[in-house]
Amino acid sequence: MAATPANPAHPANPVNPEHGRIGVGVLGYGNVGSALVALLAEQQTAIAKRTGMNLEVSRVGVRSLSRQRELALDAQMFTTDALSVVNDPATDVVVELIGGVQPARELVLAALRQGKPVVTANKELLANHGAELYETADASGVDLLFEAAVGGGIPLVRSLRESLAAEPVSRVMGIVNGTTNYILSQMTEHGATYSDALADAQALGFAERDPTADVEGFDAAAKAAVVATVAFGAQVPADSVYREGICGVTDEDIAQAERLGYVVKLLAIAERVGYVNEKLGLAVRVHPAMVPVHHPLALVRDSFNAVFVEGDAVGELMLYGRGAGGRPTASAVLGDLVDAASNLCQNTCTPIGSLEDAVICSINDLESEYYINMEVIDEPGVLAAVAGVFGQHGVSIRSMEQEGLGDQARIVFITHTATERDVQATLGDLRELDSVRGMPGLLRVIGG
Amino acid sequence: MAATPANPAHPANPVNPEHGRIGVGVLGYGNVGSALVALLAEQQTAIAKRTGMNLEVSRVGVRSLSRQRELALDAQMFTTDALSVVNDPATDVVVELIGGVQPARELVLAALRQGKPVVTANKELLANHGAELYETADASGVDLLFEAAVGGGIPLVRSLRESLAAEPVSRVMGIVNGTTNYILSQMTEHGATYSDALADAQALGFAERDPTADVEGFDAAAKAAVVATVAFGAQVPADSVYREGICGVTDEDIAQAERLGYVVKLLAIAERVGYVNEKLGLAVRVHPAMVPVHHPLALVRDSFNAVFVEGDAVGELMLYGRGAGGRPTASAVLGDLVDAASNLCQNTCTPIGSLEDAVICSINDLESEYYINMEVIDEPGVLAAVAGVFGQHGVSIRSMEQEGLGDQARIVFITHTATERDVQATLGDLRELDSVRGMPGLLRVIGG
Repeated sequence: MAATPANPAHPANPVNPEHGRIGVGVLGYGNVGSALVALLAEQQTAIAKRTGMNLEVSRVGVRSLSRQRELALDAQMFTTDALSVVNDPATDVVVELIGGVQPARELVLAALRQGKPVVTANKELLANHGAELYETADASGVDLLFEAAVGGGIPLVRSLRESLAAEPVSRVMGIVNGTTNYILSQMTEHGATYSDALADAQALGFAERDPTADVEGFDAAAKAAVVATVAFGAQVPADSVYREGICGVTDEDIAQAERLGYVVKLLAIAERVGYVNEKLGLAVRVHPAMVPVHHPLALVRDSFNAVFVEGDAVGELMLYGRGAGGRPTASAVLGDLVDAASNLCQNTCTPIGSLEDAVICSINDLESEYYINMEVIDEPGVLAAVAGVFGQHGVSIRSMEQEGLGDQARIVFITHTATERDVQATLGDLRELDSVRGMPGLLRVIGG
Repeated sequence: MAATPANPAHPANPVNPEHGRIGVGVLGYGNVGSALVALLAEQQTAIAKRTGMNLEVSRVGVRSLSRQRELALDAQMFTTDALSVVNDPATDVVVELIGGVQPARELVLAALRQGKPVVTANKELLANHGAELYETADASGVDLLFEAAVGGGIPLVRSLRESLAAEPVSRVMGIVNGTTNYILSQMTEHGATYSDALADAQALGFAERDPTADVEGFDAAAKAAVVATVAFGAQVPADSVYREGICGVTDEDIAQAERLGYVVKLLAIAERVGYVNEKLGLAVRVHPAMVPVHHPLALVRDSFNAVFVEGDAVGELMLYGRGAGGRPTASAVLGDLVDAASNLCQNTCTPIGSLEDAVICSINDLESEYYINMEVIDEPGVLAAVAGVFGQHGVSIRSMEQEGLGDQARIVFITHTATERDVQATLGDLRELDSVRGMPGLLRVIGG
């Protein structure tokens, strides 16, 4: 969507258009913050030539003054008082790269309320307090831009907010967490176990020492909430996103997927599911899934990210790139920063607009095909007993194969489309059968 | 880049902001024009809700009044006088979907000079008269938007113009012609010959009866010029683009590529090659190329398009989708239309800005690896004679294999990086050898 005039509450443009100097207050000086400061220094002249604006770092808020490893800036620029960066009259635009909800929320709100545009990469903040922040930005007539919050350097948010603003988007499916995609790629391509692949990712710095946020799907779920909000113009609170991580994915699942023509990926999925009580119905979830080997998402390897968009008019789109890393993320932040600064100079902004009050459907009501893999006791009648349980719950079987013998015996099913509720009820009853051992494994199957 | 105030020459906003009605004059009612009118009718309410603007088709310019097949609009809306659509006071924004240079150029210029924003899908017009049109739009302070000119529904142009405005882009490589990608995919996946695959594409409506514009690379070359302009902010005239089509690609080349771990694709490539006499040096070309099988572009099948962007900061990006077709293209046009209309209401626009006067380098100066496939007479000493010619021109050989015997004998080379000039000189001398039969085949090899 295009520019709109700033709120008359801020008629006095703080920027001196004659000199075109825009002071950039940077909050956070980790990987992305330091990469942004470096990239801005490299690109300053080119940006000035192209836009007439001279973007200059005004101040940098850091957690501790002893931790600056970079000497790109004068030591005087750094402060531990983040609010002073926001309040500094020399700060025209605020870039928030602290992450987490507090103190980021207070700082972003303070900036917006002062009529200072904010660029942020903070998916957790947006997923949990997006509605409040978007309203505050629109009320102040300034930009709140967040391209870097999902998919690092991939121009996804702008494409959804602007290029596809008039497109009837039906579904967005993304590989939005590089760590888990690296782990699953290692398991798929090198036959690694989950724990070996995780250790490898940690050694390479792709995974944190405590990998919970990545492998349990929390990071992807926050991004799913942000993507759903921009794709459908609807409020999607973080805690409404169904979430399963990849800890339960076994090398057996990966091997079976390959045999059946699929690849296992952790997907963030947001889709339109009609209307519920006259409100827009959305389904937003994160879980591992079997993706057909010829689907464009199946080909996204290592720590790359990609988001696949389906629209009634545009058909299928995919945006692919580096979903993390200092410089790719800083590139997205800088794109937003130039935009926010230009809009500020013109006293306009790109509003989010009012968000629809959508109904987020329970996963129990959603339909999918399912892959189910269970260990069984190898004796006559097992297959009939198991198939009978599927039938009782109206879950129709597309393919069923018994593999191995004796202690190694297992049955692998692919169902036709069924509801989650019916499949979970089927699994519950299967666990009660004497001939089924342990917990059946389940993966949802994405249609080709 | 963000909004800039309109030229004071047009202070009187023609739009009545109270009612928010925006009259859309549509020039051309073929596949895309009729899809746009239908899509606009479907999305009108949603757009109004989201933006407050009511987009209404004011008039439609057609070549012949007898040809309307759609009844979506009142017959009174149609006229064969295209200029009257532009001049109509009820037309606030003009959508140009006629294609070709004339009369499109006059109509677009007329609209821009009247302060009416233009949305166009016309790559030929932009590639040949872009500089004039961009200047006219910027001088009038109105938008000239052209997302649909390259890659149909793929949000490429906006990503390059806005998200990557501050990114040091080094190279853009695209599969931007669906017809040739369909033909090459059929040859690769089904072993079809070039002529059978072309006939198939014609039967399915992917290729025109006269396929010259597609198979000779003219369509891709026009798109390459447009992409290079937005990626590098430089003037790239259509006739400066080196162009080779796919007519010379044989099933033998396709099979050899597969054996060597490559796929043959028709690529449009625009890259930065340093500075020449203190001016930005660019190389812009279209030719078939061998793409490593694991490269994301290798996986773009059938009539899909994709553009792979490499930047110093953002790393590797790829945007993938439907590059043609009425509804995907109309989706991109509608995204631009909403943007142009919003900017018009706010009396702002997204300027192209001044374009650099770049030097477009000759292909002779460019470097690549090369695949060369030649029929030879199967006799002792052939390999030595042929290898000697490469050596004389300083072209270093990475791999060399003789295949077949007797009449079927051929040698397949992959070179190390060499200049086009040296490789062409090598080929010239090879043709003089008695032991080489016919014309050696050549394909440039893209690095993985």
